[in-house]
Amino acid sequence: MISSKIENIQKRMEKDDFQGYLLADFANINYLSKYLPSSFAFCVIKEGPIIYCSQMDMELASKNSTIQYVQFENFSKLIDDLKEEGIKNLAIEPSLPFETFSKFKEDFKIDSVDYVNKERMIKTSEEISNITKATKIAQDSFLELDFTSGANEKALSYELGRLMRQKGAFSESFDTILTSGSNSSLPHAIPENKQLEKPILVDWGAIYNGYCSDNTRTIVYSEREYEIFNIVKEAHDESIKVIKPGLKCCEIDKVARDIIKEYGYGDLFIHSLGHSVGLDIHETPNFSPKDESIIEKGMVITVEPGIYFEDEFGVRLEDTVEIQKSAKIIGDLPLELNIDL
Amino acid sequence: MISSKIENIQKRMEKDDFQGYLLADFANINYLSKYLPSSFAFCVIKEGPIIYCSQMDMELASKNSTIQYVQFENFSKLIDDLKEEGIKNLAIEPSLPFETFSKFKEDFKIDSVDYVNKERMIKTSEEISNITKATKIAQDSFLELDFTSGANEKALSYELGRLMRQKGAFSESFDTILTSGSNSSLPHAIPENKQLEKPILVDWGAIYNGYCSDNTRTIVYSEREYEIFNIVKEAHDESIKVIKPGLKCCEIDKVARDIIKEYGYGDLFIHSLGHSVGLDIHETPNFSPKDESIIEKGMVITVEPGIYFEDEFGVRLEDTVEIQKSAKIIGDLPLELNIDL
Repeated sequence: MISSKIENIQKRMEKDDFQGYLLADFANINYLSKYLPSSFAFCVIKEGPIIYCSQMDMELASKNSTIQYVQFENFSKLIDDLKEEGIKNLAIEPSLPFETFSKFKEDFKIDSVDYVNKERMIKTSEEISNITKATKIAQDSFLELDFTSGANEKALSYELGRLMRQKGAFSESFDTILTSGSNSSLPHAIPENKQLEKPILVDWGAIYNGYCSDNTRTIVYSEREYEIFNIVKEAHDESIKVIKPGLKCCEIDKVARDIIKEYGYGDLFIHSLGHSVGLDIHETPNFSPKDESIIEKGMVITVEPGIYFEDEFGVRLEDTVEIQKSAKIIGDLPLELNIDL
Repeated sequence: MISSKIENIQKRMEKDDFQGYLLADFANINYLSKYLPSSFAFCVIKEGPIIYCSQMDMELASKNSTIQYVQFENFSKLIDDLKEEGIKNLAIEPSLPFETFSKFKEDFKIDSVDYVNKERMIKTSEEISNITKATKIAQDSFLELDFTSGANEKALSYELGRLMRQKGAFSESFDTILTSGSNSSLPHAIPENKQLEKPILVDWGAIYNGYCSDNTRTIVYSEREYEIFNIVKEAHDESIKVIKPGLKCCEIDKVARDIIKEYGYGDLFIHSLGHSVGLDIHETPNFSPKDESIIEKGMVITVEPGIYFEDEFGVRLEDTVEIQKSAKIIGDLPLELNIDL
């Protein structure tokens, strides 16, 4: 039986006159087949969808895949199979490596389309419940983390990972950013073997049942840090209030960016307001100045304004929101947290 | 000052008549510039090499990059810059996403080349010393891990990661495979929340100063498991003895594969014999049946034969070897280990 996700993709293919759609991205293959490759694999959506998987993944595919699978032998065989089925116009993923595209370009008319990403944008209630559970695990673990133990940044970030696993997470959804002092001005700082300084910025998440969570909290101390915290909090709160289906993603980014600009810190908000979250930690669409995608019900997107003073400190506050008639924050961890150092 | 690595690449470019070489792979950019991007970046090797990095990485690039960098604005600006410098033939990485290639294809004559991977194949003594240190950290941590603590697979694999960090590792070089019982027949098994069964298979590594280590040990118990262990050990030992510069990579794979075939288990050795290791855990060339690359001094490659009985058990033994006049195993952890469960 072919799932409704695959049927939707087949309809788009028919409309655009593609007879085959080649996928190699692990998350896309997992999304469509419940088989998450551990080595390379090629999934071809066509009248009868099929996965070509590596010899060493055959047992794994046999345990998990809802799509028929065969062992990949070589590209000639795969290409011959597709030609024999009458495939002439072949769709590929935008992320497909040039090298792989090159293997197919002589035999097919190729163009890239993001049908799977389009499907993945709108989360089912089951997907949202996985993201909600991942968020609960991550937030509960954060609250149990003992910042006053004397452990350094790196040890604390690792302990947070242990707590999340203990509560049922598969793993972190990305390398935990637990940073402090002047390193907090680097949006993607790496935890170091050094004692906590002020302020403390933690950007972390868990994976539950394949789905990611994403949050950031900054614990501030000085008057100056509080002042910046409150601006970032205003940008966070006001942009979330505005979110609703039908608006463009870039309009939400603008709400937060305009608030930060008004206070004179526009140049220091050095990234987009947010990104979608699901099986991957970064999905589309984005709350970014350039993303004109229309917001729809069922999207799950982060809101994470930040202000960064190079070599001094940074403040970022991030929640993940589920979009229905309006935006609902997933999880219930307060933005303002106090930790006595 | 332009490094000798970049000069070597510029020479290859000149020979092949490329005026520019576009790189987006993080490890490649790190290899050439010492700046490891935390967000997207484009490095263009040309007469004056330059990196276009994301706004949020500008501070990181300023701290680390040995190559000039500017802030990426958009693709039109980047393309205009390259055209103004007279670039007509543009080389790209084989791994470059189709979507990125598409942005450049109208304005340049493009082909993919693996100049950087070619450079990265031959490790300097400094790179080998980093891999050696990573291996020492990983092996010392393994010996300290208490398999008899009653902790389950997942908790033990996490504890191994903690020990490696404590000894100076940046992180694991890949998700630790600590598996046992029938799951050991999956080459890339995922540690589970279950008590250890027999046999135990651990495939793990550390990152030190950016460089990866990679080892596998299988702890066997039954007579049958020992029998298979000894076949895998013979394939491991004999193939390492044969390695020397001038031979083809596939010839080494064949030595191990022939031994396993002789014992009647050829169909159960379901992956290649080995892969190169460096800044990435999987580099080229590979000890695989299809890789005709010539072995050279300075290569660092794994040797990891395995035999897998579906739903029963698997045995894999892996060392990483440094190639000089012959192959020298990095590290000194014995293949045969005893753990009383």
